[in-house]
Amino acid sequence: MGKDFVVGIDIGGQSSKLGVVDARGVVLAQSVVKANNSPDADVIIKELAEAVLKLVAQSGKHGQIRGIGVGAPNGNYYTGTIAFAPNLPWAAHGSVEFSKKLSEACAGIPVALTNDANAAAMGEMTYGVAKGMKDFIMITLGTGVGSGIVIGGQVLYGSDGFAGELGHTCAVRHNGRLCGCGKTGCLEAYCSAIGVARTAREWLDMSEEPSALREVQNITSKDVYEAAKEGDKLAKRVFDYTGRILGEKLADFIEFSAPEAIVLFGGLARAKEFLYEPTLKAMNDNVLPLWRDKVKLLFSSLKESDAAILGASALAWEL
Amino acid sequence: MGKDFVVGIDIGGQSSKLGVVDARGVVLAQSVVKANNSPDADVIIKELAEAVLKLVAQSGKHGQIRGIGVGAPNGNYYTGTIAFAPNLPWAAHGSVEFSKKLSEACAGIPVALTNDANAAAMGEMTYGVAKGMKDFIMITLGTGVGSGIVIGGQVLYGSDGFAGELGHTCAVRHNGRLCGCGKTGCLEAYCSAIGVARTAREWLDMSEEPSALREVQNITSKDVYEAAKEGDKLAKRVFDYTGRILGEKLADFIEFSAPEAIVLFGGLARAKEFLYEPTLKAMNDNVLPLWRDKVKLLFSSLKESDAAILGASALAWEL
Repeated sequence: MGKDFVVGIDIGGQSSKLGVVDARGVVLAQSVVKANNSPDADVIIKELAEAVLKLVAQSGKHGQIRGIGVGAPNGNYYTGTIAFAPNLPWAAHGSVEFSKKLSEACAGIPVALTNDANAAAMGEMTYGVAKGMKDFIMITLGTGVGSGIVIGGQVLYGSDGFAGELGHTCAVRHNGRLCGCGKTGCLEAYCSAIGVARTAREWLDMSEEPSALREVQNITSKDVYEAAKEGDKLAKRVFDYTGRILGEKLADFIEFSAPEAIVLFGGLARAKEFLYEPTLKAMNDNVLPLWRDKVKLLFSSLKESDAAILGASALAWEL
Repeated sequence: MGKDFVVGIDIGGQSSKLGVVDARGVVLAQSVVKANNSPDADVIIKELAEAVLKLVAQSGKHGQIRGIGVGAPNGNYYTGTIAFAPNLPWAAHGSVEFSKKLSEACAGIPVALTNDANAAAMGEMTYGVAKGMKDFIMITLGTGVGSGIVIGGQVLYGSDGFAGELGHTCAVRHNGRLCGCGKTGCLEAYCSAIGVARTAREWLDMSEEPSALREVQNITSKDVYEAAKEGDKLAKRVFDYTGRILGEKLADFIEFSAPEAIVLFGGLARAKEFLYEPTLKAMNDNVLPLWRDKVKLLFSSLKESDAAILGASALAWEL
């Protein structure tokens, strides 16, 4: 029997999603493992392995799995480790030999690991709007801002496996916001879901301008989006501002790697109707003339959960 | 007879340098063609071809040249064209089919073209401080600021051949200096030889602080360097400032491609004694903790003219 199937796993802070995938990208079976908040990596990996083996048995593809591809925050492609991932209690304070341990717990099926943004980029390249592209940059606008950079059809890993931390490049040089990473002014502090909510809260505090958001407790980016859809002017301006900061940095990124397209992905990218124009304008206003109006700004067409599973699974074909 | 030799050409605004090079990087013969300011590309290419054929004949390697590698401002690796190069009168206002024409004028010897910063990066990788490295970023600090990005042992060209315009990423977002490219706040407007001289002039105008530079007409970066060597405080602070702005942007670049090292090259890099510390400090202060004190900051060990010829020639081995 050939090994014609792979498993894709998307590891998240709240839950992990698994899928058995065929060569055409069809997800034959999938399941979800809820995070149990254990700080013990061995417990987590054992649980995950059981879920994998159960799902493989359900799909009827036992013995036909070529490999397991995993996307995880701070997952390192070269070393197979997950290290210092703030949202994973079992990998927040050190380095976990994830690939090795998961493979052992899954009867020796080989495991390949990358970070979640890189996995999303692979999913987009294999099945999404970046299909057929060899050079593009994926920006994931979620709780944080991540990135997966594709060069010549390959995900960029750099000298140590950690390339593509574009969310932590500097967007605001002086007096910038404190970012979760400890630096100030990072792109993530402005263009993540958390950043959008923070902008709204700051602006509400700073002025008396009427806004539907004044009625909301603990404003989230979703609240800002809903308000913008209702025509709230302050909420709309929050997206203008977010798009401008994002577009300014995208211009820098284009000048680095000359991609064919930038692909935006993640929860915040659903606010396309408010983000597209200001982002595109700032990108073109700030980039060298040779790229002006030439680099495409695209929004992911894949469902988030599918993209993550498919992207992670794509990694396993290389095993 | 094997084709065991290559020709390297470094095209500049003032003059072009040629060399016949063997597989070990020994320059067997070299010559210089002074720029004649003709706006006619055909005239320039004919002159260059004559110089190549003469040099090959002198070196006694007629019939043994595998190819000609050329580094030129705005040279495009993919298309073999030089387009809109402000410092080359014959290629300033349009696109010149350089590789094709030079090859025809050189009895059909194949020609490969890249921009000068990429050629310098290849020279550094083959013969300089980046020998053996697969991932590094070369920053050329000359009249302008150029860059050659090496990823996995290959120069990064991107989707269109123009990747690596790091001199035009944004260093100062608001009220930044006007750059030669038409944008404002570019790294090049601060960290080039011209930028250093401009900083000195601005600071002299803005204060009454005593400085040896007040005696100098038409201050150049060389004057600032000489003054700093004599202990001039204002001149030293100009380099502190220049290094800080450079280091801040290097942090961004590291977060993009996770290189093993940054290599500084070009006329201004000779001021290593004043640039190294502030640049390194700003780089480490601004980069994510995972790269802090890990990425090397190196200065080129090659003579500028040699590096350019050798780098360009390295391109020809791939022909």
